[in-house]
Amino acid sequence: MRSLLVIVLAAGEGTRMLSAQPKVLHKVAGRAMVSHVLDAALAAGASRIAVVVGPDHDAVAEEVHRTVPDAAIFVQSERRGTAHAVLAAREALAEGHDDVVVMYGDTPLVRGETVLALRAPLALGAGVAVLGFRPEDPTGYGRLLTRGGELVAIREEKEASPEERAVRLCNAGLMAFDGRAVLGLIDAIGDANAKREFYLTDAVEIARAQGRLSGVVEAPADEVAGVNSRVQLAQAEAILQARLRRRALEGGATLVAPDTVFFSADTRLGRDVVVEPNVVFGAGVTVEEGATIRAFSHIEGAHVGRGAIVGPFARLRPGAMLGEGVHVGNFVEIKAAELSPGVKVNHLSYVGDSSVGANTNIGAGTITCNYDGFRKHRTVIGANAFIGTNSLLVAPVSVGDGAYIGTGSIITEDVPADALAIARARQVNKPGWAVRLRERLAAGLAPENAPKK
Amino acid sequence: MRSLLVIVLAAGEGTRMLSAQPKVLHKVAGRAMVSHVLDAALAAGASRIAVVVGPDHDAVAEEVHRTVPDAAIFVQSERRGTAHAVLAAREALAEGHDDVVVMYGDTPLVRGETVLALRAPLALGAGVAVLGFRPEDPTGYGRLLTRGGELVAIREEKEASPEERAVRLCNAGLMAFDGRAVLGLIDAIGDANAKREFYLTDAVEIARAQGRLSGVVEAPADEVAGVNSRVQLAQAEAILQARLRRRALEGGATLVAPDTVFFSADTRLGRDVVVEPNVVFGAGVTVEEGATIRAFSHIEGAHVGRGAIVGPFARLRPGAMLGEGVHVGNFVEIKAAELSPGVKVNHLSYVGDSSVGANTNIGAGTITCNYDGFRKHRTVIGANAFIGTNSLLVAPVSVGDGAYIGTGSIITEDVPADALAIARARQVNKPGWAVRLRERLAAGLAPENAPKK
Amino acid sequence: MRSLLVIVLAAGEGTRMLSAQPKVLHKVAGRAMVSHVLDAALAAGASRIAVVVGPDHDAVAEEVHRTVPDAAIFVQSERRGTAHAVLAAREALAEGHDDVVVMYGDTPLVRGETVLALRAPLALGAGVAVLGFRPEDPTGYGRLLTRGGELVAIREEKEASPEERAVRLCNAGLMAFDGRAVLGLIDAIGDANAKREFYLTDAVEIARAQGRLSGVVEAPADEVAGVNSRVQLAQAEAILQARLRRRALEGGATLVAPDTVFFSADTRLGRDVVVEPNVVFGAGVTVEEGATIRAFSHIEGAHVGRGAIVGPFARLRPGAMLGEGVHVGNFVEIKAAELSPGVKVNHLSYVGDSSVGANTNIGAGTITCNYDGFRKHRTVIGANAFIGTNSLLVAPVSVGDGAYIGTGSIITEDVPADALAIARARQVNKPGWAVRLRERLAAGLAPENAPKK
Repeated sequence: MRSLLVIVLAAGEGTRMLSAQPKVLHKVAGRAMVSHVLDAALAAGASRIAVVVGPDHDAVAEEVHRTVPDAAIFVQSERRGTAHAVLAAREALAEGHDDVVVMYGDTPLVRGETVLALRAPLALGAGVAVLGFRPEDPTGYGRLLTRGGELVAIREEKEASPEERAVRLCNAGLMAFDGRAVLGLIDAIGDANAKREFYLTDAVEIARAQGRLSGVVEAPADEVAGVNSRVQLAQAEAILQARLRRRALEGGATLVAPDTVFFSADTRLGRDVVVEPNVVFGAGVTVEEGATIRAFSHIEGAHVGRGAIVGPFARLRPGAMLGEGVHVGNFVEIKAAELSPGVKVNHLSYVGDSSVGANTNIGAGTITCNYDGFRKHRTVIGANAFIGTNSLLVAPVSVGDGAYIGTGSIITEDVPADALAIARARQVNKPGWAVRLRERLAAGLAPENAPKK
Repeated sequence: MRSLLVIVLAAGEGTRMLSAQPKVLHKVAGRAMVSHVLDAALAAGASRIAVVVGPDHDAVAEEVHRTVPDAAIFVQSERRGTAHAVLAAREALAEGHDDVVVMYGDTPLVRGETVLALRAPLALGAGVAVLGFRPEDPTGYGRLLTRGGELVAIREEKEASPEERAVRLCNAGLMAFDGRAVLGLIDAIGDANAKREFYLTDAVEIARAQGRLSGVVEAPADEVAGVNSRVQLAQAEAILQARLRRRALEGGATLVAPDTVFFSADTRLGRDVVVEPNVVFGAGVTVEEGATIRAFSHIEGAHVGRGAIVGPFARLRPGAMLGEGVHVGNFVEIKAAELSPGVKVNHLSYVGDSSVGANTNIGAGTITCNYDGFRKHRTVIGANAFIGTNSLLVAPVSVGDGAYIGTGSIITEDVPADALAIARARQVNKPGWAVRLRERLAAGLAPENAPKK
Repeated sequence: MRSLLVIVLAAGEGTRMLSAQPKVLHKVAGRAMVSHVLDAALAAGASRIAVVVGPDHDAVAEEVHRTVPDAAIFVQSERRGTAHAVLAAREALAEGHDDVVVMYGDTPLVRGETVLALRAPLALGAGVAVLGFRPEDPTGYGRLLTRGGELVAIREEKEASPEERAVRLCNAGLMAFDGRAVLGLIDAIGDANAKREFYLTDAVEIARAQGRLSGVVEAPADEVAGVNSRVQLAQAEAILQARLRRRALEGGATLVAPDTVFFSADTRLGRDVVVEPNVVFGAGVTVEEGATIRAFSHIEGAHVGRGAIVGPFARLRPGAMLGEGVHVGNFVEIKAAELSPGVKVNHLSYVGDSSVGANTNIGAGTITCNYDGFRKHRTVIGANAFIGTNSLLVAPVSVGDGAYIGTGSIITEDVPADALAIARARQVNKPGWAVRLRERLAAGLAPENAPKK
């Protein structure tokens, strides 16, 4: 297996984003663009990753290290072209990897298999390999000039002859290099051009002058789109979502209205999962076979067991673990809570920092009071319990198996198994009170016998 | 009126669906595909319906009988082509109907009027009639070869000459037969082909050999799409939703963003109904003139009266009956409850198994406790009542006309008309308590005077 | 600066809308069509506005006066063509404005700058200026016949020669007139045509006969679309939403899924605002820099401060004023309430008619009881307070700085600063109760020791 260094160029300011945040930290499918690029690099077999960032881009380095803890970070302090940016990582280039691939932090849609394909010409002896694509409108792109399958040059549009402009195959930007030759090639690149910049694309002609062949690998146009503005960010999101929706459908899930379901790159749906319209999956969600996610549900960091039913209008937050056949209904929020098989939380509830035993029914309006203003505490509920409507469970507290909590009770003390716990004020009826109130109002008097105080 | 037998072929496994469920039970617009086909058959005047199912497809038979209780079910145990499948229903064919139409359980978009049109050639003396369509790309479809308006053959693509391939009119699959001739035609079909199957399409050439004419009826391409995968299921859903949205608009409803509104086939909207973005209508919903359904509402099995306002974030479940001018607001669930004209339930409430009299105001956070862990009970509220915030109405219970429930009361006993009912603990203020708590925390001590226990 | 009279023709019945409401009152982006037209007129510098309405269209006049209080309203009692409609405003025309522009109440997408551009030929001496556009399919539109840049006639399609039909530039309807000449032109228009109506388009040829030039100004096709049906209303909404989404993106906001975000014309988003999928903005919303609006949020008449986080499933109603860094979470409704910086209302709450001091935490299920069935009252909460879960704050009431409300308390009396307030019934546990209940049920007995009554 050939070793692979991937250099990710991520130093761009992204001024067209009009953002206080470095461009490559903007997200698609809930994940920073640069991390999608790192994912593809790892999928393509990267044994070493170097990222070139702009000055004061510590936040980029942090994001990179979350995905690849041992990535090398290099700072490009001056902006003098792509070859100059790659040379900021000279130290990594000098480590002597077999293959070197240069990627861009703002092209988040490139798939790992495409990067892998780009390495193929190197294994066959090429000095350079360039990723090409065929845009609908090639205006503005560099053209890939080939002769007999060999790439002979990358021609910028403004320097292209009419015949060269007629070429549809364009430069996508990603390049692969023979790791033994890469420094020799890039060091030979000059800045004898209008902008006095060092262009990585010149490496093709230099390789040719050095007697090395260059190859072209073609990718679908929707993989290589770069993001320079919020409009393009939204377009990248749309392309990635379409890919994720198709994957879900082809895996045997029903999406009633695919265009209204938003996935994270890591969402996993089992067979016969049904997702109704308008569902958002944040990061870290697994839904097992036969579960149904009803409309208007929002799910992040959660596990949904076989045959469970979630929503409509349900929110599962990180740490929500739903066992088989659990029902979580409308206006219910579950956070950091394990619901055992058969649990039902159907209406207007908040269950957080809790565990709930099998087949327990949690009534409408139940709230686990996990926060006392200073710290969070846990609630433990047993199996086959019945938590009456509008119960408040003030953590830390436990409710035993088979226990029964009376409607509207505030539970501050542990409830033994099979006990009834109740905390409730006595009802008083005051006959005719409302008639007198209306009489006072009709007479223009204040409702002084109002029940409030 | 000519009698009509419709045979629905529904025996396919649908392996490309990757599903534990028979293909024809997958739903579009909330209804099993096979039931859409049955609806079209009935709309076309079917006097008799036979459905051919696969082995162990009891669930299909059940679904069929929900729509057509007296449908005849036949099992096709071996898969030997469409003609073979039709002959599984030989018994029904032998009953002597005037017309016989063969439909497919996985083409849910065919409209009743199209089936009706397919019968027309029979009334004019044709032995067979075939439904045709003009796909954008005819590749893979059988071509309908006509001469002087007469259908002379259905040619599979791989057996077609170049001129035949140039024909754009393709076979949609649905066929109609003269009921007196049908058995003679189908029994004559052989299996002398590569796959050794009996193809119903051969009936055209056999009819011709018997001196009977065949006719063609053309349908829009979006009616005859078959569903073999989850992707195609989603496409069928999109086509049907587009049809239902257009029907709603043409009926005088405003859909602010039609693409975000999901209908069931039976949704009925009156004139001047306004539907905001992101609304889902399940089965069995009627919305009367001038009502407004606000964004993020989910409505099933419910009636919404004239001028009522529902949502945003409202859920109406089966049996919700809203009278004229009722308001149901955000984070409110209504189930099996009759709300008389002028009732308001505006915030964070669950009203189930209840009836509420005219002009009663139900405060935020009110919950009808209809389930005691064992059985469901009803709540009856009179007219002009005021149910204070966060009231819990523990059913069975009744609240009389004009009564007033104090904030936060748990009502377990009936409240007479015009009475005030109140159940509430007395408030105690403990001055300076929070200061001492913060002092203890600053000193690193546990907050032992915390209010919890 | 030339003075400008804009005459808005708004008398159409709009029978194809199938509506009890006059057509021009139907809304796009939450605003009546006629008001969009008035906005454009004002943006183009209108110093005087006259609106021609149909008989019994008082509601149109009311809507007009909300936007332009001193607009002159004229009633067209008989329908005899566009020129006849304009002459209903003869009184305004006689006021002697420099420029006169005729607009239509049912073309809500025309932008102010387009109207401004239409005035330009007048300043250069033209007697008439006509707005043109190039529809994809010109069938049915009047063609603009030009010669050397001069408009010589507007030719109705049915009277056009084949060469004239080949003209792609069509009449959009909007016209501008030299204010000194307008009455002379329009009074000269006759009704010698099939329908015996007075067509404003005849003014071009009359001006030419009078020796005055006419000019053409071209507008994008998607600006001049008229609305005659619910389908067209939905199309206009889609065009306007696309425009508003692009404006938001170009202003430096991230819209994860632009097609699922619905704006009002006056929505203002700061830089680095992130809007997740499925968000609806009603009228009067400002979101400051760096705030995040999470999925499934519904926001009207509200201000969201810098870095605040709203949603998912949040509803902000008019008068919700969120300070910097405020969090409003799921199933929370805020109405007419000022939340100071750092306030958190994360779950299942209703805060209305209130003010909340900085950094106060409002627990799940808290409800401000602002309505006693007769009047609304205010709740005032100080800074750094902790409102325990499911607290009910019965207004008018105040909670002091640093105070602490115990879980589930009903607060009817003011709470001093730094005090603990608590109102709660004592918990009782009844051991073994649930066992006996289950035994009775197993024996077929009623659960008479049920906790309810």
